[in-house]
Amino acid sequence: MPANGIETLALLKELRELTADAEGAQRLAWTDTWLRARRWFESKLEGLPVEHHYDAAGNHWVTLQGTTKKCLVLGSHLDSVPNGGWLDGALGYLAGFAVLRRLIEETGGHPPVTVRLVDWADEEGARFGRSLFGSSAFAGTASIATDRSRTDSTGVRLEDALKKCGVDIDSIGEATRERKEAAAYLELHIEQGPVLERLALPLAAVLGTKGVERHSVTFRGQEAHSGSTPMGARRDALAPAAKLALEIRNIAAQHPDSVCTIGCVKTFPGIATAVVGRCEATLDQRDLDAKVLGNMLKEAREASERFAVEENCTVEWSRIWNIEPVPFHPALIELCEQAIEEVAGLSHRMPSGPLHDAAEVARARIPTVMLFVQSLRGISHNKIEDTKEDHIMLAVQALDRLATKTMAWIDRA
Amino acid sequence: MPANGIETLALLKELRELTADAEGAQRLAWTDTWLRARRWFESKLEGLPVEHHYDAAGNHWVTLQGTTKKCLVLGSHLDSVPNGGWLDGALGYLAGFAVLRRLIEETGGHPPVTVRLVDWADEEGARFGRSLFGSSAFAGTASIATDRSRTDSTGVRLEDALKKCGVDIDSIGEATRERKEAAAYLELHIEQGPVLERLALPLAAVLGTKGVERHSVTFRGQEAHSGSTPMGARRDALAPAAKLALEIRNIAAQHPDSVCTIGCVKTFPGIATAVVGRCEATLDQRDLDAKVLGNMLKEAREASERFAVEENCTVEWSRIWNIEPVPFHPALIELCEQAIEEVAGLSHRMPSGPLHDAAEVARARIPTVMLFVQSLRGISHNKIEDTKEDHIMLAVQALDRLATKTMAWIDRA
Repeated sequence: MPANGIETLALLKELRELTADAEGAQRLAWTDTWLRARRWFESKLEGLPVEHHYDAAGNHWVTLQGTTKKCLVLGSHLDSVPNGGWLDGALGYLAGFAVLRRLIEETGGHPPVTVRLVDWADEEGARFGRSLFGSSAFAGTASIATDRSRTDSTGVRLEDALKKCGVDIDSIGEATRERKEAAAYLELHIEQGPVLERLALPLAAVLGTKGVERHSVTFRGQEAHSGSTPMGARRDALAPAAKLALEIRNIAAQHPDSVCTIGCVKTFPGIATAVVGRCEATLDQRDLDAKVLGNMLKEAREASERFAVEENCTVEWSRIWNIEPVPFHPALIELCEQAIEEVAGLSHRMPSGPLHDAAEVARARIPTVMLFVQSLRGISHNKIEDTKEDHIMLAVQALDRLATKTMAWIDRA
Repeated sequence: MPANGIETLALLKELRELTADAEGAQRLAWTDTWLRARRWFESKLEGLPVEHHYDAAGNHWVTLQGTTKKCLVLGSHLDSVPNGGWLDGALGYLAGFAVLRRLIEETGGHPPVTVRLVDWADEEGARFGRSLFGSSAFAGTASIATDRSRTDSTGVRLEDALKKCGVDIDSIGEATRERKEAAAYLELHIEQGPVLERLALPLAAVLGTKGVERHSVTFRGQEAHSGSTPMGARRDALAPAAKLALEIRNIAAQHPDSVCTIGCVKTFPGIATAVVGRCEATLDQRDLDAKVLGNMLKEAREASERFAVEENCTVEWSRIWNIEPVPFHPALIELCEQAIEEVAGLSHRMPSGPLHDAAEVARARIPTVMLFVQSLRGISHNKIEDTKEDHIMLAVQALDRLATKTMAWIDRA
């Protein structure tokens, strides 16, 4: 009997009832609503032959002991952004729970390989601006020194919010202990993009998470009166920024899965009657291939310098953030494709633009793969985020088959 | 004996001492500092054979009665923007005062033509957002209905600020009475742009004030995740805005004195990780020729629609403000050029991009011309606004000669 997708749907709706309002899901990490979601999930464990505990970083681990100590880990997150969707994180976690229950029933609570289900703490980083909080502590890539000083928009310190939830910021490094015996990690997630909908496919095997180079690019010209300054006498800082906004599309077009985005443009003084003296833009570039990403960054920088010279302006770059590409495990990608083909006929391979906890797990050198299920309209982080119910059912089945294949793969290793 | 430019310089410095702080001039209209500047000027009238009074809109009139009732009017404004320069407005007004004093001395207080000096109330509109307040009341183009509801940044109503200065908002229309017998209007002003400095010329005859078409242009695409949305699936609202920012330069380049400016760009949601769903830009277009201005507006609108289609976005225009071009009087432009050539050898003809009280006077069908004197670095509305002292002296001399020529022209008419 396969994992029960109908039950997964029912649990997703129960969770929505409990933690969403008219604006969407409100399971912001380190808040009462998030804790309520976790207590609710704990109640679903009653009577099951599993151990569960919270680790030093607030990740919730449910363990079904198997014949070997080597573990298959299934995971995702229950936290959401404010006004979020009903599926982002919750689907992957509750689908993992369905797999766990199927294995309990099928094996009488004694699978050949130990299986663990993890609810990562604060994947979204929506309150304190620190994404992948729990999984990076697990992976040993967390930076307590940097994170300690974080505050939310009301001034509450991350450190104090953690303490309220029973987490001591100085001990989060101890979450690395949970890595012991982890032999593979699987995560199902909604795509959050339009690719599968456009292909009319329900599911994809994910090749990895793209690396990100995120910079602030500032052009400086000369503020001047819009009425009294002839066109030829201007040093308009908007002009090189406009050229760059168009050029990044040519730069991204050279590589099939690359994306380049200018998401924020600010003009100073920013009034109708003044030529722009300073223009600040954010540039976000992503690719799965570190070399391609490095080239795109170089090309954008060179283009910006060329445009600055053309417009008699200057340009300055400063890095906001970056992360290297994280490719997933080739053998698990293969198994994932097989599982998808078995339940849906056709599969697709694609990189993930958004980051996921799976990237942190893979950085800890644990063989990892993700499954994507189609998102309607490519929209997430919004109450209208949605996926067809039959696609949700297929996704649970595919994860279930992938778990079985991966347990066999672990056993063989 | 020509008008005394040295005295004008001394008065400008005395006024700066009285009304500027470390950040620049603070003669914001309808404030105590502005009233102090006006009281200071009144003290300079003591002992002169002139009548003076404030009209219903707060304009200050000084009259030297001549043989004929027909008037030559000289004017500008004592108010400044906050943190303004020492010359904007004050130079033209105190140069007019130097001409008045020269005429008193030369004619024993009885010139052939009546001469009036006017300090227009609230040219800048810096506190309530209503420029040319006093001169538009004089011209009969003021709109009490619209202006009544204006408030400053602290919530004070325009109506109450006027009352404190002895002006009843319901009576400002009576300022039109001052138009009686006005036969010509002359105004000297700093250029506020870089044209004369680039030509290495001290003075120019002004052809008129450019018309302005000011619009808000909003492009709408689709907000999307910068990581998960392939380049080909985007409807990026920044793209057509960037194209328009570059195209307006081609549109302006078709006509020698035209200017087009996008001074403010706002992106929504305006974060590094989202493709721009909505982009709002301000477009300010100016030309002295109404037909050229109309064509430029049409071309920009058509270009924006073409770019919106190309980028699978929509575009909407809404007018922020507009004013028609105001050409000055051809005969007075001639006299102005003659006066400049006599004192400086070479003259130049140019339109004014910024608006001035002279535009309102000309709209009231009073023959008008302006004189520009070179601005250093083209900068105004800033404490570093400046003009060489020898250029200030030449400007006073040129205004003086132009006044003499214009009085003869009035007498001939």
